Amino acid sequence: VPKALLFDDTLRLVKDQPKPRATNGESLVSVHLAGICNTDLEIAKGYMNFRGIIGHEFVGTVEESTSKGLVGRRVVGEINCVCGQCVNCQNGRATHCANRTTVGIDHRDGALAEYVAIPNRNLHIVPDGVSDEAAVFAEPLAAALEILEQIHVKPTDKVVVLGDGKLGLLVAQVISLTGADVTVVGRYAHKLRILDSLGIPTMLLDRASSEAGATAASDDRMRAADIVIECAGKPEGLSLAREIIRPRGTIVLKSTYVGSNSFSFTQLAVDEVRIVGSRCGPFAPALRLLAKGSVQVEAMIEAVFSIDDAERAFAAALAPGAMKVLIRPRH
Amino acid sequence: VPKALLFDDTLRLVKDQPKPRATNGESLVSVHLAGICNTDLEIAKGYMNFRGIIGHEFVGTVEESTSKGLVGRRVVGEINCVCGQCVNCQNGRATHCANRTTVGIDHRDGALAEYVAIPNRNLHIVPDGVSDEAAVFAEPLAAALEILEQIHVKPTDKVVVLGDGKLGLLVAQVISLTGADVTVVGRYAHKLRILDSLGIPTMLLDRASSEAGATAASDDRMRAADIVIECAGKPEGLSLAREIIRPRGTIVLKSTYVGSNSFSFTQLAVDEVRIVGSRCGPFAPALRLLAKGSVQVEAMIEAVFSIDDAERAFAAALAPGAMKVLIRPRH
Repeated sequence: VPKALLFDDTLRLVKDQPKPRATNGESLVSVHLAGICNTDLEIAKGYMNFRGIIGHEFVGTVEESTSKGLVGRRVVGEINCVCGQCVNCQNGRATHCANRTTVGIDHRDGALAEYVAIPNRNLHIVPDGVSDEAAVFAEPLAAALEILEQIHVKPTDKVVVLGDGKLGLLVAQVISLTGADVTVVGRYAHKLRILDSLGIPTMLLDRASSEAGATAASDDRMRAADIVIECAGKPEGLSLAREIIRPRGTIVLKSTYVGSNSFSFTQLAVDEVRIVGSRCGPFAPALRLLAKGSVQVEAMIEAVFSIDDAERAFAAALAPGAMKVLIRPRH
Repeated sequence: VPKALLFDDTLRLVKDQPKPRATNGESLVSVHLAGICNTDLEIAKGYMNFRGIIGHEFVGTVEESTSKGLVGRRVVGEINCVCGQCVNCQNGRATHCANRTTVGIDHRDGALAEYVAIPNRNLHIVPDGVSDEAAVFAEPLAAALEILEQIHVKPTDKVVVLGDGKLGLLVAQVISLTGADVTVVGRYAHKLRILDSLGIPTMLLDRASSEAGATAASDDRMRAADIVIECAGKPEGLSLAREIIRPRGTIVLKSTYVGSNSFSFTQLAVDEVRIVGSRCGPFAPALRLLAKGSVQVEAMIEAVFSIDDAERAFAAALAPGAMKVLIRPRH
């Protein structure tokens, strides 16, 4: 009987989860590998009031499908399950579907499980040359690419990425592909070294002064950025972004965290700064970049655990400075 | 001896203000008419810590100039006095000059006076067909046009303008020229009537429920706006904007007020909303629209006072629901 990681006030391994059915335009995917995202850690703290099987980063093989051509194919899947009928769906904003459910996040069981049911339209076939360990990054890599769907990053732009979390490392790599002058500000030398090895300049945020971002904000490499991409995962990121952005510059917000910031919108008007919220992105270019080897993801894997060790896996993912923790649902 | 309105902890009429000199690429303008802007009211409360002659909306005649061709011409003037050398000036962002002074707002005497000195490069000659009473609106009309410099408003867009203040009325008129479906939400029936008479739909914000914007936010005309332009002049404007903007929509911030808002940036990321700060704009198109009669400004004049009645003029400008109060410095 299939295993799954259920969040229901607490997170626990369920060993007799009924196998989902592939009905209504859906496929049943046998999960090879699934990632733990910061959103999963937030859900475990109560974010979205989600109850169900968590997990939304996965790669697997289609075992059953209402679309015969998908059976047996190795796939990754978009997480927003949409109605196709609402004003957002019909105007090119399907990820904002008014009636959406979201895999492992909002009213739909997720992929930290042996099986997950996914709408056929959400599935993307993984090219043969892309390993499972790379393909499992398709979802966060698509989220990084969403920035380039939303704003024009020019080769001559000076871009600062705030945050060396898993998303920050992907964003830095994707934005660097434009030729822009990218600097990544982070807290963990071992994570910044991954970027150093790819030729992407980095800067260690001095933890002692990080609350005010004083060190970073006074560093010449930081000042007067055309674009700041906030992936810090906490309110201080936006404060630092505001200090280093140039007039008429663009701040992209990728962080999602519980709570509100206090913010001077008047200064935003005076400096004519833009703030752009950014969430899920396109899978097809993510798979193309993985197939070409243009983005390095396997160096970002912290550890791979069996689903039987899910408790240890989550502890590892929660450790300060942890990179991507993966779970293998089947042996 | 010239008169001027000086702010120096208190606002007072000075009757022996030395006449400024036209040196260093500047002109001496004899002011015909000057407007009181909300920014002046904020300055009188301490905004910008300004000390000096206030006022930045004016029309006048050049009396002396280092540029002979300007002498005797009727002019309006841009308010940002810039260095031309800094990185912002040299990259097309002169209104954000790092070394700027601002007429009547920041380290430079203003135009609520018989005379004001203005850099020649800031002056725009007023077409003959434009009255003084219309030309004095060039500065706020340029600020309204700045929105169209910054974002693309499409003829098919649904736009909501929040606020029926002086700027809100100008913004509504300018945005309506695009053909977009504009609705203006305001608090004063007598101001909204000006727009009604121009064929621009309006909606009275119910004062009883306005804190939450409950009435407006639940009205079908308000929901799912492509663009919301926040001219409400207070924090509640942004909260209502956030309630009615569609996913991936754009909120333009025109309001400047003292203080900070508490704001959920996570929800901004989830809905991929854009926020664009907006300040000073281009004078040339403002004068073109005034010359063509495409924007109606004279109906927005509350009263014209002599500079000797400045105290009464400011009291009139401060009254709830007041429209544009003008001051005539010379008799």
